[in-house]
Amino acid sequence: MTAKLNIVPFVSVDHMMKLVLATGVERFLTDLAGYIEKDFRRWNVFDKTPRLASHSRDGVIELMATSDGDFYGFKYVNGHPKNMRRGLQTVTAFGMLADVGSGYPLLLTEMTILTALRTAATSALAARYLAPKGARTMAIIGNGAQSEFQAIAFKALLGIDRLRLYDIDIAASRKCAHNLAGRGFDIVICASSADAVEGAQIITTATADKQYATILTDNMVGTGVHINAVGGDCPGKTELHRDILLRSAIFVEFAPQTRIEGEIQQLAPDHPVVELSQVIDGQAEGRTSAEQVTLFDSVGFAVEDFSALRYVHDRLPGTGFSIDLDLLADPDEPRDLFGMLLRAGAKEMAQEPADP
Amino acid sequence: MTAKLNIVPFVSVDHMMKLVLATGVERFLTDLAGYIEKDFRRWNVFDKTPRLASHSRDGVIELMATSDGDFYGFKYVNGHPKNMRRGLQTVTAFGMLADVGSGYPLLLTEMTILTALRTAATSALAARYLAPKGARTMAIIGNGAQSEFQAIAFKALLGIDRLRLYDIDIAASRKCAHNLAGRGFDIVICASSADAVEGAQIITTATADKQYATILTDNMVGTGVHINAVGGDCPGKTELHRDILLRSAIFVEFAPQTRIEGEIQQLAPDHPVVELSQVIDGQAEGRTSAEQVTLFDSVGFAVEDFSALRYVHDRLPGTGFSIDLDLLADPDEPRDLFGMLLRAGAKEMAQEPADP
Repeated sequence: MTAKLNIVPFVSVDHMMKLVLATGVERFLTDLAGYIEKDFRRWNVFDKTPRLASHSRDGVIELMATSDGDFYGFKYVNGHPKNMRRGLQTVTAFGMLADVGSGYPLLLTEMTILTALRTAATSALAARYLAPKGARTMAIIGNGAQSEFQAIAFKALLGIDRLRLYDIDIAASRKCAHNLAGRGFDIVICASSADAVEGAQIITTATADKQYATILTDNMVGTGVHINAVGGDCPGKTELHRDILLRSAIFVEFAPQTRIEGEIQQLAPDHPVVELSQVIDGQAEGRTSAEQVTLFDSVGFAVEDFSALRYVHDRLPGTGFSIDLDLLADPDEPRDLFGMLLRAGAKEMAQEPADP
Repeated sequence: MTAKLNIVPFVSVDHMMKLVLATGVERFLTDLAGYIEKDFRRWNVFDKTPRLASHSRDGVIELMATSDGDFYGFKYVNGHPKNMRRGLQTVTAFGMLADVGSGYPLLLTEMTILTALRTAATSALAARYLAPKGARTMAIIGNGAQSEFQAIAFKALLGIDRLRLYDIDIAASRKCAHNLAGRGFDIVICASSADAVEGAQIITTATADKQYATILTDNMVGTGVHINAVGGDCPGKTELHRDILLRSAIFVEFAPQTRIEGEIQQLAPDHPVVELSQVIDGQAEGRTSAEQVTLFDSVGFAVEDFSALRYVHDRLPGTGFSIDLDLLADPDEPRDLFGMLLRAGAKEMAQEPADP
């Protein structure tokens, strides 16, 4: 318990960028994947409630919360596909970590950047258990805001150093290639999805349109491939043809949520899937053969945000990358909230110059 | 749309106090009750989801969200009854207003003080429809953080100017009386609940312990009284004897929530209750006779927080009582989140002094 009970550290976008840069993007992603892995290993301690979603014509606003009994974390996140056309982010987010014992917030932070990082870290973590051994080449279909983070996470955690990029807008692929220059990747910009997946052991799909789309068709997916499907993450939004799902071993974060939001919304509600946490803690097998097609149907789950909040909370002290926010009322006597208000008024008046 | 898309105004506790004091507590409560009344009158437009609650041994952390289709509001609030013994607030809160069209936050604000204000404003608003005509005397049982706000709201909206205070800890009653001195109240500190309700036309109960308590027994409640029950607001926490409920006309905010959290958790799930919004928009009657016992079983609902957020958002411009928070990532090109990070790094390096 600190002396200043009313103060909550706040990490702005600018401070988050500085924290990531000071840490190094690769190390940040590796450390973060470590936190996520630890939390997935103790999956059962988490309070796993569905996200609280408010849908509207143009998008959705969601609150994602979870707790391990000691800490509580939640994230505010929106998804508005049309925002991009107005020069706005499709997804913006912020979040909070709180102490379960007192209910007091411990950290408030931007999470737009942090979500991009935790999504990529989770993808790479899953691939470490699911991708074919020795994979070096990844196709990335959809080269928007998530693409570079995916590439760097897969490099840091799996050693992926060859990228095959495709986007319906070639400017996005060029932006991705440009941003990744000098990071040790061999990068090819491809003319089609079919072209991009040629020779790739891992296929990442990260497109943004809110619609049933078929980014990958069955004939494009060869044996032994690992598919990292990131973009199908809400009802009505999928990226893969159903036939691919039917011949894949499917891994998910939290089955009840993924059945509503993920690629598997196209399948029967009892279609067998394995939760990643079970693979991580050894209760279930990951990839069982070199020929198997594995699919990580990623939709993003509150536990990953929780891990990210914990990581930032642990990393922050001493860095100077936060400001103090006077977020909580802290009267000298807890029952005397009104008295605190009165005293603030008295103080105010005492500070004002008297009339001459 | 402002030029600085990444900036969200933040109202700290200190700024909220200044805003309330600059407005005047009575006027703030009256204005706020006006916003709540308007929103209750258009009750059907609101997306009314149950709160997302995370219960633990010592308390609860909740997210309360709602939307009218144009704006979205949510509040983070904890309830930890034992906090008081450690010098902490039982309840702390903060909240956010966002634009439904873009999902972008518009306002982040402390809500510990604001919740106290909206709770009192809602109570007084309900009483304006339910209390006996010409009521001047109110008993307040439980003289903690909520008590002064209740007193001032009832004065501002109903003209209540005689208070009969009771708390199991007389220091709380003295604190309340002291804080209200000079505001035109005739105040009596009473030795018991039974003493406090003598001659009162309105009885407000606002105690804090998380347990089934019986603050009021049946014989203490005379005909014609209006009961404003504020403290029974979560499962397992009630204040009134069941017999009182059975002879009262019961008014609630949102029946599905109140049946779980309010006094009426003691009653059959189909016991008739009337929603306050129906009374306000004329679909249902409020008080129907001078002899009737009316009960407002208040638990606090997300729409009230939404009204409070809207009010603060409207009041704020030009006051200077907020700071700019760099909460949202705002890359020049929405798909180029990683490029924004890279450019922040380049800028950083350019600003660092070169090695000599």
